[in-house]
Amino acid sequence: MSTTNLPIDKVNKMTYEEFIECFGNVVEHCSLCAAAVWRERPFRDAQCLATCFGDFIDRLPISGKEGILRLHPDLAGRLAQAGKLTSESTREQANAGLGRMSGEEQQRMNRLNERYKDKFGFPFVICARENKKDAILHGLEERLENSPQTESITGANEVKKICRLRILDIVNPNSQLTHSPL
Amino acid sequence: MSTTNLPIDKVNKMTYEEFIECFGNVVEHCSLCAAAVWRERPFRDAQCLATCFGDFIDRLPISGKEGILRLHPDLAGRLAQAGKLTSESTREQANAGLGRMSGEEQQRMNRLNERYKDKFGFPFVICARENKKDAILHGLEERLENSPQTESITGANEVKKICRLRILDIVNPNSQLTHSPL
Repeated sequence: MSTTNLPIDKVNKMTYEEFIECFGNVVEHCSLCAAAVWRERPFRDAQCLATCFGDFIDRLPISGKEGILRLHPDLAGRLAQAGKLTSESTREQANAGLGRMSGEEQQRMNRLNERYKDKFGFPFVICARENKKDAILHGLEERLENSPQTESITGANEVKKICRLRILDIVNPNSQLTHSPL
Repeated sequence: MSTTNLPIDKVNKMTYEEFIECFGNVVEHCSLCAAAVWRERPFRDAQCLATCFGDFIDRLPISGKEGILRLHPDLAGRLAQAGKLTSESTREQANAGLGRMSGEEQQRMNRLNERYKDKFGFPFVICARENKKDAILHGLEERLENSPQTESITGANEVKKICRLRILDIVNPNSQLTHSPL
């Protein structure tokens, strides 16, 4: 089955195995989100599906939100440099210009990432598709001042934005539920 | 780092990346659990670590508990027959005698698994190391009568038993925290 531009009716007919296969990485490395959200079908459209993922993330305890952040790679970090990111992360980080940093910018990014992880115990997550390199570096510095509680919620909200954009890459955004298959 | 018979002090010194690598599959295919539980360190001992995983599962909404079940393979199902289970599941299912079923038993298991998934929308999960083939087939028939709500909680409790035994395979059960590394 092709997994771009899917009509929502096709999504609603998926078994849970197919659904997890298709949407298992819209939240990075956290297929539990897709596995949980499947029960909410039929979905009216792509936006509605994204909202279900967001609601599930919101309902997780703080430890779960932090856990989701810990499953994310460092921005422009070791995995990116070794070419070992998921295909989704690779594209997103490249679009933000993170592959075209000067040596100095790269060092600044590494330093800030480390300070962030030391302080919070999870990596800095930001929706790279909505930000460019400079805004990301600025955001990192600014968010380092937050409290851990605030920052786990800020990070989770960025995960929700990334998730919505990844879903819109998979499901045709104009497609509407025409009938309930259940 | 060897990942059997680890002293708890070593576990408590792990970064979250190391911890997720080591404990990411004690809940089958659900590394979010390990990612969430890391914040609870230092752990006093292996039992205490297992209890933290159990508490996290308990705090998930019903959709999350169901999601965890959906990340499990069918017992003695297609993946087992194709040799594509995780190493943990392979060993557990073999110990329960699920690899030595007659054709008739295999058909009965497949039929019951399908009925169970049709009714509940997630697969039948049982701690195979605490049950043998006959008890498992009997349990499947019995649990088919439960309500979906009861069954998601029963299934989650089985996941907790599996998780505890997998942790005791990794961490030396006699090892105690000698000092807090944090």
